[in-house]
Amino acid sequence: MKILFVFAHPDKRSFNYSLLNAAIRRLEENGHTVKVSDLYRMKWKGIVDEDDFLNHEKGTRLKVVLSSTKAYEDDQLTEDVLTEQEKLNWADVVIFQFPLWWFTMPAILKGWFDRVFTSGYAYNIGEHNQKRAGDRYGEGVMAGKRAFCIITAGGREQHFSERGINGDINDILFPINHGMLFYPGFTVLPPVVIFRVDSESTEVYMQAEKEVLERMDNITEIKPISYRKQNFGDYKIPELTLKDGVEQPSNTHFDIHIIQD
Amino acid sequence: MKILFVFAHPDKRSFNYSLLNAAIRRLEENGHTVKVSDLYRMKWKGIVDEDDFLNHEKGTRLKVVLSSTKAYEDDQLTEDVLTEQEKLNWADVVIFQFPLWWFTMPAILKGWFDRVFTSGYAYNIGEHNQKRAGDRYGEGVMAGKRAFCIITAGGREQHFSERGINGDINDILFPINHGMLFYPGFTVLPPVVIFRVDSESTEVYMQAEKEVLERMDNITEIKPISYRKQNFGDYKIPELTLKDGVEQPSNTHFDIHIIQD
Repeated sequence: MKILFVFAHPDKRSFNYSLLNAAIRRLEENGHTVKVSDLYRMKWKGIVDEDDFLNHEKGTRLKVVLSSTKAYEDDQLTEDVLTEQEKLNWADVVIFQFPLWWFTMPAILKGWFDRVFTSGYAYNIGEHNQKRAGDRYGEGVMAGKRAFCIITAGGREQHFSERGINGDINDILFPINHGMLFYPGFTVLPPVVIFRVDSESTEVYMQAEKEVLERMDNITEIKPISYRKQNFGDYKIPELTLKDGVEQPSNTHFDIHIIQD
Repeated sequence: MKILFVFAHPDKRSFNYSLLNAAIRRLEENGHTVKVSDLYRMKWKGIVDEDDFLNHEKGTRLKVVLSSTKAYEDDQLTEDVLTEQEKLNWADVVIFQFPLWWFTMPAILKGWFDRVFTSGYAYNIGEHNQKRAGDRYGEGVMAGKRAFCIITAGGREQHFSERGINGDINDILFPINHGMLFYPGFTVLPPVVIFRVDSESTEVYMQAEKEVLERMDNITEIKPISYRKQNFGDYKIPELTLKDGVEQPSNTHFDIHIIQD
């Protein structure tokens, strides 16, 4: 398979980089082809501005959604963004690897989503009618591709449980997994989350590498998160609210948007 | 009062900028003093890298938490970061205003948090012992200050309800409100969320401005979100998990970390 890493850590000598290298080696041993978007090494431009849309007249009002649509349609996106879109189009699996900073991804990776997931490409696509509200949440440009996150966190796992002081890591990551990955059509696998990375112990690293390599061996076998698709009967259209009684009574909050076994 | 806006929108002719200007005017009419960190106009550097820590030896391993601590302690942070910290120290209220892009803040604002909320300043402070696990979640550098978000979103409000296709906006924003604002000690007010901004209608703008101005008039009266403080008896220490039976049985997920009336 063709596997793309989108990687966001500033240092090549980091815990994260060591994991990345181990993962790539294993994937290649297993016969896969790997590409890496190493955002810091690429000096990725992380901020959306008018320079992103080559057909935008400088100094005129910038409406990001509209300018993004027009630039995509007229093939007036910048080279760096087009290159990333080509890599995405090439890949069967996309892995986002990053340290958890302030409970989400580093700015450079957020800026990758802000710039690469343009209107017309990753959103604002497909028909809107009585049965469909566009191609999103289970359909879209990434349909048929898998994606997941490999995340390192300083805190302990129990701090990221439902009763933990930070809240449940699965809820914390819902805006990423559901809102950024499932939205443009990816099949989303559960994240690999490595806790206590700041402890710097060899034991933590070895356990982390083991988990990551296991995932690399099982990318095709791992059961995806069963997010409910938008246009397949669970949601009212055009209201886009979950139909009454679809979920199990014990499910609440984000969980009602996941089919429970 | 002294009020700081941290504002993240690329265009001065935007819906967001109009709201900002209306808000500033009203606050000044009401006798407050206002400062604005207008990140795009400031050409804010959004990405953490080794240049952020003046005492970091270039080309050596960058451990962000460690380098951040050392740079803060030795007064070796960059001028732009120090200026933002001084503004925060000055303010009684901090308002974060931004468009919701991919279910969170634009990269430039994430990069403001990544760079300004350094270790030693916003986290990794206070004592760790049998009764306390550092100054955070209700204590810390921002204690006594209020903060809240003003957010514009393209979608409709019902799409951001619990049963809505995107999930509940309050859950989507929990990693920001709880994880980025309550964590360093802010008293967090409910966000002002303006929906359907892409509709571009005058009616939507006028209603939005009304909501924002009402909030400006009521900053001191609005009831904060009652997040549970870390070191005041609700959580086990050092486990940092919520004690059994503290929450109401009907509360689940993030809600258990909020005191319900």
